[in-house]
Amino acid sequence: MDQKIKFTKMHGLGNNYIYLDLVSEEMALPALNELAIRLSNQNTGIGSDGMILILPSAVADIRMRVFNKDGSEAKNCGNGLRCVAKYAYDNGLVTSKTFTIETLGGNVKAEIVEAGAVSQVTIDMGVPRLERGTIPMAGDLQDQPVINETISLEGEEYRVTGVSMGNPHGIFFVDDIFSSPIQQLGPLLADGHPYFPEGVNVGFVEKITNQEFQYRVWERGSGITQACGTGACAAAVAAVLTEQAKKGEAITIHLAGGDLVITWDDATNHVLMTGPAVVSCEGYYYDAV
Amino acid sequence: MDQKIKFTKMHGLGNNYIYLDLVSEEMALPALNELAIRLSNQNTGIGSDGMILILPSAVADIRMRVFNKDGSEAKNCGNGLRCVAKYAYDNGLVTSKTFTIETLGGNVKAEIVEAGAVSQVTIDMGVPRLERGTIPMAGDLQDQPVINETISLEGEEYRVTGVSMGNPHGIFFVDDIFSSPIQQLGPLLADGHPYFPEGVNVGFVEKITNQEFQYRVWERGSGITQACGTGACAAAVAAVLTEQAKKGEAITIHLAGGDLVITWDDATNHVLMTGPAVVSCEGYYYDAV
Repeated sequence: MDQKIKFTKMHGLGNNYIYLDLVSEEMALPALNELAIRLSNQNTGIGSDGMILILPSAVADIRMRVFNKDGSEAKNCGNGLRCVAKYAYDNGLVTSKTFTIETLGGNVKAEIVEAGAVSQVTIDMGVPRLERGTIPMAGDLQDQPVINETISLEGEEYRVTGVSMGNPHGIFFVDDIFSSPIQQLGPLLADGHPYFPEGVNVGFVEKITNQEFQYRVWERGSGITQACGTGACAAAVAAVLTEQAKKGEAITIHLAGGDLVITWDDATNHVLMTGPAVVSCEGYYYDAV
Repeated sequence: MDQKIKFTKMHGLGNNYIYLDLVSEEMALPALNELAIRLSNQNTGIGSDGMILILPSAVADIRMRVFNKDGSEAKNCGNGLRCVAKYAYDNGLVTSKTFTIETLGGNVKAEIVEAGAVSQVTIDMGVPRLERGTIPMAGDLQDQPVINETISLEGEEYRVTGVSMGNPHGIFFVDDIFSSPIQQLGPLLADGHPYFPEGVNVGFVEKITNQEFQYRVWERGSGITQACGTGACAAAVAAVLTEQAKKGEAITIHLAGGDLVITWDDATNHVLMTGPAVVSCEGYYYDAV
């Protein structure tokens, strides 16, 4: 027997999830990991990067749970947080433009900067971790940051900056984003390498001005994607660390799927990410188990 | 400004389209080719193999227009016809279980064999064309069929049977579908080769019994797909031509996405295809141009 499940599909810079509102709707859902797999399947389901549940929270204004398209649960998702915030505000799950979202990775502050069909939402992505051992990267001085360090990969020398936004980013500054060695270094580093024993999101950054950078990413476990919210944060942090941008100033990061504006706040040391959240469709999914 | 467009997403064996009902709903749609591209985009739209319009017809009970995900218009689509038939019957666009559908490739008869969440629908796919020149295939005797003809490809010999179901199919019988040379012959033949000057859908068929065959396909322009309705018809016709199955008997074709039952009718010479049609979701798409 089919179960009829109310859904909203939203995306941030093309990063798309099926959102289920369990605050407004009482739904007895089937096993979540398998449901995420079925919903995400473009052939027989809706088609998405995964499923995000919007839930009541005891410790924040609302709570989100993120399931990848393979059914595994993720700690967090920058693009998903903006969409959850838009949904909560547009549908009256919160009454203020500033509120908190509980995630597996902790509580996160969200602010609706601009409401509308394309909402602009700011998410406080927290304090970046820079210690070599936290990324983690191999080498000495595990409590020190890794800034423009020369590494030798397959006979070529590269310079890398390490930033953790909860997940690890290796940032390579290049002269031309479109001729960057993403196809070489992505597969080499992303899913584990002596330098990055837990793998890394491999990001290439091209400076346009000190407030504007291009960014392309090979994501750990996913390959090239249109947008990576934490990666854009890491790119801006790395630009400040390498003295190509200033802390406290708004930095626009151009991704394949669109733009994010990142500010590494001077007073709090937190990274603030502002970008769009869009509803692409909504309706009912017929779940056949 | 966003336009709100009512849609139903359906699939036949995983071959999935966004269906817009222009019989029940008055909709002033934007340019169709670009709309199909936007709707089909999983990142920023819904995600599908394309868009199918259901329209009133002057020459049949209803009319369908098929747009591929690249925006081009297709003549026909076997899996799409079953879904259009299910939609028309379930939503009262037709009053009988037997009716006709106008397509760019001509009028087609449809019959609802079984209504329900998973409908079973029979589509009359017409008379197969077997002449060498119609497929088309290179060689002499252009008005004769090509049955188990030996061809030499990259130093190996293969035997091929040619069937046109409006589109060209080259059928190769093999002992084991899962070790068939689909990765070699697909790219070699599908998009143009001296033997198949207009390209061909490259199908591999394994006999289980004389009423049951396995089928895998490399589709012209698409590569390996889960299901190809005309290909399943061609496989059954080729099984009859090579005397592995009988004309007039129901033949079950197992595809990666599920089963189709094909009968090459003795009296009319038409090929009848029966298989499932399923609604996966429905609702409103927000089209941002």
